[in-house]
Amino acid sequence: MQPLRSNAGHMKINIPEVKQPRVVIIGCGFGGLELAKRLAHAPVQVVLIDKNNYHTFQPLLYQVSTSGLEADSIVYPIRKIFKGQNNFHYRWCEVQKINSEQKYLETNIGNCNYDYLVIATGTTTNFFNIEGLEEKSMPMKSVVEALNLRSLILQNLEKALLVTDINERDALMNFVIVGGGPTGVELAGAICELKKHVLPNDYPELDFRRMRIILIESGDTLLASMCETNRKKAVQYLHDLGTEVWLNTKVTKYDGLNVTLGSGKPLQTSNLMWAAGVKGQIIEGINPDVITPAKRLLVDEINRVKGYENIFAIGDVGCMMTEKYPRGHPQVAPVAIQQGHLLAQNIVSLINKQATKPFDYFDKGSMATVGRNKALVEVGKINFGGFFGWVTWLFVHLMSLVGFRNRVMTLFNWIWNYVSYDRNIRLIIRPYKAGDNK
Amino acid sequence: MQPLRSNAGHMKINIPEVKQPRVVIIGCGFGGLELAKRLAHAPVQVVLIDKNNYHTFQPLLYQVSTSGLEADSIVYPIRKIFKGQNNFHYRWCEVQKINSEQKYLETNIGNCNYDYLVIATGTTTNFFNIEGLEEKSMPMKSVVEALNLRSLILQNLEKALLVTDINERDALMNFVIVGGGPTGVELAGAICELKKHVLPNDYPELDFRRMRIILIESGDTLLASMCETNRKKAVQYLHDLGTEVWLNTKVTKYDGLNVTLGSGKPLQTSNLMWAAGVKGQIIEGINPDVITPAKRLLVDEINRVKGYENIFAIGDVGCMMTEKYPRGHPQVAPVAIQQGHLLAQNIVSLINKQATKPFDYFDKGSMATVGRNKALVEVGKINFGGFFGWVTWLFVHLMSLVGFRNRVMTLFNWIWNYVSYDRNIRLIIRPYKAGDNK
Repeated sequence: MQPLRSNAGHMKINIPEVKQPRVVIIGCGFGGLELAKRLAHAPVQVVLIDKNNYHTFQPLLYQVSTSGLEADSIVYPIRKIFKGQNNFHYRWCEVQKINSEQKYLETNIGNCNYDYLVIATGTTTNFFNIEGLEEKSMPMKSVVEALNLRSLILQNLEKALLVTDINERDALMNFVIVGGGPTGVELAGAICELKKHVLPNDYPELDFRRMRIILIESGDTLLASMCETNRKKAVQYLHDLGTEVWLNTKVTKYDGLNVTLGSGKPLQTSNLMWAAGVKGQIIEGINPDVITPAKRLLVDEINRVKGYENIFAIGDVGCMMTEKYPRGHPQVAPVAIQQGHLLAQNIVSLINKQATKPFDYFDKGSMATVGRNKALVEVGKINFGGFFGWVTWLFVHLMSLVGFRNRVMTLFNWIWNYVSYDRNIRLIIRPYKAGDNK
Repeated sequence: MQPLRSNAGHMKINIPEVKQPRVVIIGCGFGGLELAKRLAHAPVQVVLIDKNNYHTFQPLLYQVSTSGLEADSIVYPIRKIFKGQNNFHYRWCEVQKINSEQKYLETNIGNCNYDYLVIATGTTTNFFNIEGLEEKSMPMKSVVEALNLRSLILQNLEKALLVTDINERDALMNFVIVGGGPTGVELAGAICELKKHVLPNDYPELDFRRMRIILIESGDTLLASMCETNRKKAVQYLHDLGTEVWLNTKVTKYDGLNVTLGSGKPLQTSNLMWAAGVKGQIIEGINPDVITPAKRLLVDEINRVKGYENIFAIGDVGCMMTEKYPRGHPQVAPVAIQQGHLLAQNIVSLINKQATKPFDYFDKGSMATVGRNKALVEVGKINFGGFFGWVTWLFVHLMSLVGFRNRVMTLFNWIWNYVSYDRNIRLIIRPYKAGDNK
């Protein structure tokens, strides 16, 4: 390994120096996790950096927000995952800048040199610079944000009890979700179930007939990546549960109470959940020419960032334009996992100066759940829903969780919630204050 | 019910007005919870106020701090506990002042009148004004504080990896617990188990032979409320696990690194856990003459605060001096529960102008656990420990948890931890920053 050059005066992160090349992976999402695991027996030193000391199973965050699952059962400590992997080193820090010429990273705990750098930072919420959104709406891309949303929902119901003005109370009891993708659909469904089975028992003094759940989508359909049948079914399911679905509706401003819509329709809510867009989490130091408008990094067929020799990007933050996916692959876990898996092989090939293998996405299908016994599943040309779809959804998500313990905990919670119609962890552990998501 | 008097200009909390007298209970700990439940069929309106929307099972907080249990499984939503109790109203707020003459409370959400007021606020950490403690040491009296401690322990180990100075690293890896009561003993034992079974796998780069766990007690014994045999056994158990027990040692100052001891012995640690004292959580407006130096409220034999007709104090915050307990009852859950139970009857008697019944504490015994297969139990003159004591401890604590779901979750965690020797939730969900406990 080359010594860190031109780096005088800067603290280096204390990591054992070895002869093997160092692969630094930024981010322990689905892609980074898979890559680091697959490099276990490769002739490299693996350094994984993440600002959280755990892996997050993002697809279930919405259940944390809606008091259905403990945060602790959908995340898993990184050090535990890599227990016994001798070439592995984790460091808890945030990367501030990439210095690609001298091949090192600047982080909040010092500098870290690399031979191969893999950016697996995923995405963050995209508010599209819409006025008021970043400050006043609730995103849900991390455990902390999901817990903040859980708190806010409960806080606003507690507040609703106190106010006597009917409009003010309605605003506190209205739940508006923006974004008709799987997250928005799942969140709307889960809130409908809270309204139906849980909240009336908790707040007998409130009139829940007045509580509205509105799902807003700027396009003309929900679940745009699914087939026509499933899109229609999703709307039907949500209607049945009590969600109002407003298609072709754009949010142009939010002041914490009034939602300004393109349609001009008046809408007031104290609970605006923003699930309408993501953008790549870019790190300073990468050539802007290879960054797409959605802040993804243009990569070649082995996930190498264009114009760089030793920098790669996998998962949601990468953008590999292929014939089949001219605008890049969908930003879903299976792409990240498959790219991580393949990149481990390709890095070894590069070290051994052997031929690399281009990425070819194997699409196993997609799914979304709306609620109890209601899910939509698409595998190739086959699509199904209802109870069977729902069980498939449960099974696939359960098996994708990291760790046997998390699976047992989650399964127990699901069975409990299913049988009791309850959501037991409606707790305001840390009250949400405006600005806490920043 | 009397209307709120002399309260013009102040918002009243929106609570339905009924004909029955209103019993306001401040705090949903063991005492407040029991009282509110027992009043379910009494001819009163029950208003429960707590700054948290959940009941906390405090005896297991130390397991949250040491990554053994999820916070969510030792707390329980208040509204769920009282589901279906028609005379019950919960309000999420903090009480600022009692106005005993006009019989109302000032809270952060408005005023609340009462006919009977029950103070069940419990205790908070007592730092005895020792320099630096409140700012720099870690208390553990609430879920948030326990989670902060969990974060700090893990953060300091992450930091230990980064430093090259051996003294600095030692300070990050030293764990000092002050207070030889059950909390201190249990915490020390749990950290020893982390050191033995979990941390060396997580941090193979650290030398855990250098990690010290020190339990400091100002008196000449641990578990002062227990018998001689058990006190000695506790020290032995802790020694076996690897805790250094320093008796007759006073902490006089802490600057975040250096612990100044009465003995003059030098000691450095970045992890100082303070479990050495509590004081009652007093609310402004109570006559200072009835407040003891430990901030408990002097009460008569029916828990009525001395000098007041309609104000009561139960549990840890009350101080009933009797022949058998000249300095008040021990500050433990059974006292609070029994006082809550009896007070429900006595309030009904007072309303009906019938004779009240004085409180008589039925002491079922006491227990403390040190670690795997190691606990101490005392029931009357019988005392035992070892595996049987440990199982007894587990069983009693499990059955005392509120809610079947929490019991199942906790039991599963315990079995899992026992079989795997692991602690799975070593997560830094919200990194601790100095001052977060304030």
